[in-house]
Amino acid sequence: MNIEEQLDFLSARAVDFISRDDLKKKLEKAAAEGRGLRIKYGADPSAPDIHLGHVVGLNKLREFQDAGHTVVFLIGDFTGMIGDPSGRSQTRKPLTREQVEVNAKSYQDQVFKILDPEKTEVRFNSEWCGKMDFSDVIRLSAHVTVAQMLARDDFSKRYAAQQPISIVEFLYPLVQAYDSVMLEADVELGGTDQLFNLLLGRELQKVMGQEPQCVLTLPLIEGLDGVQKMSKSLNNYVGISESARDMYGKLMSVPDDLMWKYFEYILCWPKEKVQQTHAKVAAGELHPRAVKDMLGQEVVARFIGADEATAASEEFTRIFAQKELPDEIPEVVLPAEELGLLNLMVQAGLAKSNGEARRLVKQGAVRINDEKVSDERAQITPEDGMIIRSGKRGFAQVKIA
Amino acid sequence: MNIEEQLDFLSARAVDFISRDDLKKKLEKAAAEGRGLRIKYGADPSAPDIHLGHVVGLNKLREFQDAGHTVVFLIGDFTGMIGDPSGRSQTRKPLTREQVEVNAKSYQDQVFKILDPEKTEVRFNSEWCGKMDFSDVIRLSAHVTVAQMLARDDFSKRYAAQQPISIVEFLYPLVQAYDSVMLEADVELGGTDQLFNLLLGRELQKVMGQEPQCVLTLPLIEGLDGVQKMSKSLNNYVGISESARDMYGKLMSVPDDLMWKYFEYILCWPKEKVQQTHAKVAAGELHPRAVKDMLGQEVVARFIGADEATAASEEFTRIFAQKELPDEIPEVVLPAEELGLLNLMVQAGLAKSNGEARRLVKQGAVRINDEKVSDERAQITPEDGMIIRSGKRGFAQVKIA
Repeated sequence: MNIEEQLDFLSARAVDFISRDDLKKKLEKAAAEGRGLRIKYGADPSAPDIHLGHVVGLNKLREFQDAGHTVVFLIGDFTGMIGDPSGRSQTRKPLTREQVEVNAKSYQDQVFKILDPEKTEVRFNSEWCGKMDFSDVIRLSAHVTVAQMLARDDFSKRYAAQQPISIVEFLYPLVQAYDSVMLEADVELGGTDQLFNLLLGRELQKVMGQEPQCVLTLPLIEGLDGVQKMSKSLNNYVGISESARDMYGKLMSVPDDLMWKYFEYILCWPKEKVQQTHAKVAAGELHPRAVKDMLGQEVVARFIGADEATAASEEFTRIFAQKELPDEIPEVVLPAEELGLLNLMVQAGLAKSNGEARRLVKQGAVRINDEKVSDERAQITPEDGMIIRSGKRGFAQVKIA
Repeated sequence: MNIEEQLDFLSARAVDFISRDDLKKKLEKAAAEGRGLRIKYGADPSAPDIHLGHVVGLNKLREFQDAGHTVVFLIGDFTGMIGDPSGRSQTRKPLTREQVEVNAKSYQDQVFKILDPEKTEVRFNSEWCGKMDFSDVIRLSAHVTVAQMLARDDFSKRYAAQQPISIVEFLYPLVQAYDSVMLEADVELGGTDQLFNLLLGRELQKVMGQEPQCVLTLPLIEGLDGVQKMSKSLNNYVGISESARDMYGKLMSVPDDLMWKYFEYILCWPKEKVQQTHAKVAAGELHPRAVKDMLGQEVVARFIGADEATAASEEFTRIFAQKELPDEIPEVVLPAEELGLLNLMVQAGLAKSNGEARRLVKQGAVRINDEKVSDERAQITPEDGMIIRSGKRGFAQVKIA
């Protein structure tokens, strides 16, 4: 790829990109010096469950790696071990050193499903923040103004609404910005909600004599509820280390409208392919459920494997079918004695005659405990709770006499 | 003194007093426990010249000591050694440890002219701030909100005027408030410009589980210019370690209207006495200059000694008189030979006859080199530059032939 192609590739799917000119200069300079850029990505050490929300960014990081650059995966353990001292956030409990280490290990196990370990530098900000004393903090905080901080969207809203903002909330973005200085980041990547913090890193690098980092944001995808952004604390997420069954099952619950975003940002389908598929669904040529199955299978295949994806899809279909049982199922009282399938159907009231029963079996409409039975001569031993089904509407449940 | 009398005595001359009820409770509790209260007073370590502006507060501290309490004289060396990292203030250069120590020694030499060393505890906030790391700062800053800080008058004005406020400026009052916690201050004293910071100490003590300190502010007196508050940086101050001559001389330059404040807050004259003296001046019974001389002498007497006060007054009068010489003085050429005073007066053109000269001497109108000469038979040896004076308007200067 030449530089322009690389710029297109690297900025694809980005929401904010500050700026193409800056990144171009950095790429040219790095190329001239025969080195890659340093791409910073900050991770919250308290939630080591990497989910599809993270994948949006991790995909982009991988693209940077594929273009020859180094990802600096920064684990914010310093602030993680402090938690939220204002006590307002229940979800930010202070972590111990041991928890941080366990979480860091877990992070690496997970992110290397997407990132190239050879081109990834894992760092912890306690490395520098842990060495800072009060006077260092004072000197650092001199570089940023209150107005700069209150310009952040959530702060300005809370300030206007007279909701308390603790001073510590001004220090946390400062830590994040200082991390960029210490890491000499060329680019920082984050969600759109991180734009302010990423730009603050840019400002701090400038006042501290570094070339400011480029900033690239990616969208926050909504979670399974289709409304709020995917996050662990809202429990609307799909973790990349979940079982194939859970991963597939959760994806099948995604609202239809949201699927297209997942295809684009998680599976990185080209925009045209997403649009074409969308058009087919709109035209009734493709059932949304089939598309969602494709989504679920592709995601499972990516993070676990193709066989697991197929199995998960099949298992889900079975369970899904079971879930379609009507609330009221007519009961048929039978002795626990083996009998012919056609006889069973008639006794259960699902066919008027052996002939009708035979026809239903031949149509593939007959299931026992959600397993299709296609042999009309099958011998069945009734069990308590056994479900006998004929087509979409015929049900009976066995009760042993 | 009973508690109510003590409350009156301790709150005299205060501008803000938060609150009488709180202080009453503290006094009662301390009395029951047989101990005194801890009265915190913070000093800026960069300006060890104690001036009359400080004396306003030091007088009050001394009154607390006289009532049996302990003064905690806090030298803010921690922040002093950092200075103003935002670089906006030219007057706050970082101090070295050596400078802090020299300044602290100098402070003690000076404040013990007013305070009782036996009831004074000198402390440095580097003792606790120097041990704090970044995580301690984060925990501390969680206790205070941005809105609380922006409520401070100067901050709110600057914020509204879109003038930059560095985050570090939020940390400095926090340090000061934390000092109150570490010192377990019962009362903090300061100028009216410190009210916000003193109240913040009160708040922080509350959230950190201590009984909040009482707050007492005293007025900021204007300096020699009569307009701006007395301060070293404005060079409108009278230092308590200045020479008697400078101290007296500077006080003689105070605007007449301001004298009364100095009598009340620096010399602690009872309000009635100040008012009576003021009334006499207004009625023309007392010349403002005589009152100002009294002020100058009393201040010098307090900080240096009574004899030095008299001498300073006399010297000033001489110099002052000299300063009143007209620009053009008629010259009288004489040989350097002794002659009688009356003869000298006639030769100098200051009297038409020995009889007129004798009358002038008797009226006390005759001065040689600003020394009154009352002996009409005095023998004078003319010297080059000698000034002979008769009343307010007659002058002659000797030139030796």
